[in-house]
Amino acid sequence: MVIAMQAHATAEQVDAVREQLEQAGMRTVAGRDGVRVLIGCFGEVDAIAPVAVATLPGVESVVPWRTPYRLAGRQLSPAARTVVRLGDGAQASVGDASLLVIAGPCSVEGREMLLEAARGVGRAGAGALRGGAFKPRTSPYAFQGLGLDALRWLAEVRRETGLPVVTEVLDPRQVDLVAEHADVLQVGARNMQNFPLLAEVGRVRRPVLLKRGLSATVTELLLAAEYVLARGNRDVILCERGIRTFEPATRNTLDIAAIPVLRAETHLPVIVDPSHAGGRADLVAPLAYAAIAAGADGLIVEVHPHPEAARSDGDQSLSLAGFTELMRGLTPFAAAAGRTLVQPHTPGREAAA
Amino acid sequence: MVIAMQAHATAEQVDAVREQLEQAGMRTVAGRDGVRVLIGCFGEVDAIAPVAVATLPGVESVVPWRTPYRLAGRQLSPAARTVVRLGDGAQASVGDASLLVIAGPCSVEGREMLLEAARGVGRAGAGALRGGAFKPRTSPYAFQGLGLDALRWLAEVRRETGLPVVTEVLDPRQVDLVAEHADVLQVGARNMQNFPLLAEVGRVRRPVLLKRGLSATVTELLLAAEYVLARGNRDVILCERGIRTFEPATRNTLDIAAIPVLRAETHLPVIVDPSHAGGRADLVAPLAYAAIAAGADGLIVEVHPHPEAARSDGDQSLSLAGFTELMRGLTPFAAAAGRTLVQPHTPGREAAA
Amino acid sequence: MVIAMQAHATAEQVDAVREQLEQAGMRTVAGRDGVRVLIGCFGEVDAIAPVAVATLPGVESVVPWRTPYRLAGRQLSPAARTVVRLGDGAQASVGDASLLVIAGPCSVEGREMLLEAARGVGRAGAGALRGGAFKPRTSPYAFQGLGLDALRWLAEVRRETGLPVVTEVLDPRQVDLVAEHADVLQVGARNMQNFPLLAEVGRVRRPVLLKRGLSATVTELLLAAEYVLARGNRDVILCERGIRTFEPATRNTLDIAAIPVLRAETHLPVIVDPSHAGGRADLVAPLAYAAIAAGADGLIVEVHPHPEAARSDGDQSLSLAGFTELMRGLTPFAAAAGRTLVQPHTPGREAAA
Amino acid sequence: MVIAMQAHATAEQVDAVREQLEQAGMRTVAGRDGVRVLIGCFGEVDAIAPVAVATLPGVESVVPWRTPYRLAGRQLSPAARTVVRLGDGAQASVGDASLLVIAGPCSVEGREMLLEAARGVGRAGAGALRGGAFKPRTSPYAFQGLGLDALRWLAEVRRETGLPVVTEVLDPRQVDLVAEHADVLQVGARNMQNFPLLAEVGRVRRPVLLKRGLSATVTELLLAAEYVLARGNRDVILCERGIRTFEPATRNTLDIAAIPVLRAETHLPVIVDPSHAGGRADLVAPLAYAAIAAGADGLIVEVHPHPEAARSDGDQSLSLAGFTELMRGLTPFAAAAGRTLVQPHTPGREAAA
Repeated sequence: MVIAMQAHATAEQVDAVREQLEQAGMRTVAGRDGVRVLIGCFGEVDAIAPVAVATLPGVESVVPWRTPYRLAGRQLSPAARTVVRLGDGAQASVGDASLLVIAGPCSVEGREMLLEAARGVGRAGAGALRGGAFKPRTSPYAFQGLGLDALRWLAEVRRETGLPVVTEVLDPRQVDLVAEHADVLQVGARNMQNFPLLAEVGRVRRPVLLKRGLSATVTELLLAAEYVLARGNRDVILCERGIRTFEPATRNTLDIAAIPVLRAETHLPVIVDPSHAGGRADLVAPLAYAAIAAGADGLIVEVHPHPEAARSDGDQSLSLAGFTELMRGLTPFAAAAGRTLVQPHTPGREAAA
Repeated sequence: MVIAMQAHATAEQVDAVREQLEQAGMRTVAGRDGVRVLIGCFGEVDAIAPVAVATLPGVESVVPWRTPYRLAGRQLSPAARTVVRLGDGAQASVGDASLLVIAGPCSVEGREMLLEAARGVGRAGAGALRGGAFKPRTSPYAFQGLGLDALRWLAEVRRETGLPVVTEVLDPRQVDLVAEHADVLQVGARNMQNFPLLAEVGRVRRPVLLKRGLSATVTELLLAAEYVLARGNRDVILCERGIRTFEPATRNTLDIAAIPVLRAETHLPVIVDPSHAGGRADLVAPLAYAAIAAGADGLIVEVHPHPEAARSDGDQSLSLAGFTELMRGLTPFAAAAGRTLVQPHTPGREAAA
Repeated sequence: MVIAMQAHATAEQVDAVREQLEQAGMRTVAGRDGVRVLIGCFGEVDAIAPVAVATLPGVESVVPWRTPYRLAGRQLSPAARTVVRLGDGAQASVGDASLLVIAGPCSVEGREMLLEAARGVGRAGAGALRGGAFKPRTSPYAFQGLGLDALRWLAEVRRETGLPVVTEVLDPRQVDLVAEHADVLQVGARNMQNFPLLAEVGRVRRPVLLKRGLSATVTELLLAAEYVLARGNRDVILCERGIRTFEPATRNTLDIAAIPVLRAETHLPVIVDPSHAGGRADLVAPLAYAAIAAGADGLIVEVHPHPEAARSDGDQSLSLAGFTELMRGLTPFAAAAGRTLVQPHTPGREAAA
Repeated sequence: MVIAMQAHATAEQVDAVREQLEQAGMRTVAGRDGVRVLIGCFGEVDAIAPVAVATLPGVESVVPWRTPYRLAGRQLSPAARTVVRLGDGAQASVGDASLLVIAGPCSVEGREMLLEAARGVGRAGAGALRGGAFKPRTSPYAFQGLGLDALRWLAEVRRETGLPVVTEVLDPRQVDLVAEHADVLQVGARNMQNFPLLAEVGRVRRPVLLKRGLSATVTELLLAAEYVLARGNRDVILCERGIRTFEPATRNTLDIAAIPVLRAETHLPVIVDPSHAGGRADLVAPLAYAAIAAGADGLIVEVHPHPEAARSDGDQSLSLAGFTELMRGLTPFAAAAGRTLVQPHTPGREAAA
């Protein structure tokens, strides 16, 4: 249930209500709808009857949760939007008026290629670097990533370029290790409902980039986010990356409507992965433009210094030149959407970082 | 097969090749790839062996059709884009630098509401009016449209406002009747593979607005267009209107990637129906913006003077005020996409029409 | 609304209620739930308030329609099952304890092949012959069927073998022509929501075999049947033939659960097309066995005397030997399902016909 | 690549070929196609050129792998079928002529209910007991299972009834713990591509029941199995449990064709979960019959002593009486499929265990 306090309720009254609920074994979270304090109650059963709560001093009304997700939803703080900051110096952010573009190779194939990619995407205006150290591959015989070496290179390249680093974590036992080396922990589409992994990333102090599962509904995505939020990590970035349908022309079908639907349902930032959605380099730009026009807070794009030589996902990777062109093409759409694009990385900024 | 003539081949050589093929029972169509004439051959079997054709004077090479669709594809004229003109005075067009916005009620519910809708959407910048006379409804007990009365009102309102009129035709026996009253014949999603209907609309001299079936692939959409083109009607406008997937948050899933995929595969104009795709009035604007950003040539939008009283699709219809706001919101995205929006309808223009 | 009369209501009371409703502009249909007469009322609006009806003599209760389909549903006659008879001499039936197997070529390619196919499938125990005269093909350049010639051969082969004939009708203008030559009119998957066609087949006195659309829900299939029933043709056979999903291993995905779902929702017979569902000859037998085990009333199977030379669907067609083997394999599953298989066609029966 | 040795090749020649390949850094596995030894080679790159291998003594031919899965496929041993034995005393098996029916509650809710369920399903002929200790739930606020307590009860009930126990493992860190208590480790649909989990269950000596993901293709299911097989655990049971489609009448869509497709592609046993596929108790029996008719090696069915009080999945659970009826109904279908059903559990057998 959610308790709306009267507009003029005192802080003491709010505290008294929360205390009483918590003594009954429930957990409470406070929000606000402009004029009133709202108290969200959690617990498998309602230990106190809503009618009993309704008579406490300062309480205006008691209503049920409207959605199965609670912390991820908008009921407790209808007007709020979560802004997630990336990097120890908060070099980048997502969920505010700026657009965040995360770019880099599918997998980290070596220190040099990663540095080349990072410098290139940073110069073109990317706000963060992506790169896979542990790769979830459909076949056990496909390249699985370079693991710890790749993590170390990511951390080095971050120091050299100042770009916050996003990388995927596959295994709950590796969450701490990955969190040591990276700024954002990505949970991939195949792991969207890997609940032990969600619990672990919910425990650390790193933003989580949560990708929608191939056949997950928007509601299921928000419930997966709820697992992370409920463990105490409030920095969740949602990512639409295409769903599985009958259409063979594209690798997946980008569910563009999920962006405005998510913006209506949640305060969490929403980004789009046009590379995996389309699976074709020539579709990245139109899908990216569409995503921004539909209201996305950012993008995550596969960029490889030499796509033709990539060990994975070469078909959908942009070259550095292609990425630069994408960023140039994005600019008017960002402006039309009332968003600012991070300015291209200047040498000074890199030095400062 | 497709025959590429040499760059310096004479018109006589081209004619001689075509004549020989046609004498062998094939049909030919000529195209151009910039420097060379291309000859496309049609016929259930290759009546002449490609190797025999390759030795005719002026022939450079003979290659197979690359796609199952031929007239709809880009092989014969790689650089061409079809511009479709709407209305007897060609009041509007689609496929060129302008964006065409078709707007109006789901179904024509009366003369007055239609005129009110037409004036409102025209004033806001719509280039054409939509309105259903014959409605394909899932249930035999649902409102099926007002039929001939609705057609007459459409024709009247066209005369009064100068707006070309788009309406659906369901039955091959009604194609001529509908073509008398309307400027564009819409073939609905459920009829995308109604081949007798496609043949009939292929016979008339009215543009055809062909909607993608709920579970049709892009290739199947293009093959449905091919049915129309092969009958001689070259004015086909394709419409992406959402496909059926597992996601329940929206009525259908707008396949935004279909727009750039279609632009790569065909010279035909592509528009988007954000109303049916999302099935929710609040999603029309973000989906419309996304469509334009992805490269669509236009939109078809449900607008009702009084959505709350609509006899069908009220949930997804915009009010006139909502439509005006949509057009205002579209403007910067159209500019970002290098497109012009038809200017709002001025009294002078209406009088002229 | 549906009106339940009291168990002891007189026939006069039933008539009086119906008369009053019909005078108010509604249409009524009578059913029975074992002990009571039920009256179903049709009309776009309830011309008489349910409460007014509830006070008429002999009325026990008035309830709303529980499902959007009415004549196709089970509310009016919960225990009834429709048995559809095929052929002017009712040579075969479906919906009773027997299993109906319809078999034959995808398309009628000639008189001789059709006769060979008919004799072969009849000998193996098929109850009816299928064969396409008009073929709905995705591409306009694919073989479209032999039309009227094929219809005539179907009628001839029916006379020679005594097998009722099933063939597809695509065009509302051809319904009468096809009905003259065939015993059952098939409405294909692509035409499931071709409402003018449904209206026409609803008008004739031939059973209709209605195939589920590629992305139609069970409810939509039943509403399509309702279009036919509402026009007065009560002999509708439903056919599950696979739906479109992401799985590429099969042409479509046979929705086996649709069979028990349909048996719970409707009194109409339900058959399965394992040939189109799987799209592979090697899958026909296991899918056919599964269909019978799940409660299907019959099958429609593609059989070609020479599958390797078939002009369409050769990959999924059984040879005559393969069909004979299928029928042998079916026998124990039919018995397990409490069904009888039509006995193999004896020369005597053929002579008699 | 796969190397076919000549029919008369000596064991020494086979060993020599394998040794040479392994010295070059490849892993080899031997199979047999009736008359010849086949050697499958594994390694990210072909360290030895196939042409070089083709000239080794005793080698007949060298062909590429035909499918992306290798150990799971049929290329190495076309005629083989894997029989998986369950329980330390191999009380049950799957993949042979017998049908294995695994039954029990969705989640273990207490010792008493589990014992009641086990005795009931054993009496009715189940060959193994299912019961969830760790439940993957879409919402973090839903019941997550009783964990270690549940595991202990499962082990106790196994001792008391002699029924091997199947339970789900969610977390790679819990594989050893679960393997201590259970006979079969279930990997759920959501974890089908949880690669660290697959690696861990590939390491232990317990059969793995691998459920198909909601939107996984058959090929992806086999590649997931390949992860387990490649780690050394050859006892993988595949489970079709419905895929996600647009159809709302059922929880998922049982892909019945996946059974014969899998039987053609792999030697691993294939079972079906009719409870999750349909999501409705009334559909369990027809789906179970269909599964057996289509060639499934067994079933996994949710049975609860008191479905109306179940803490999860009550709608799709059978009562003990319902399960007994299911088993009775299955008998003729099992016979028709040439399968034997495990005989109902006798007291003697229970005592012996």
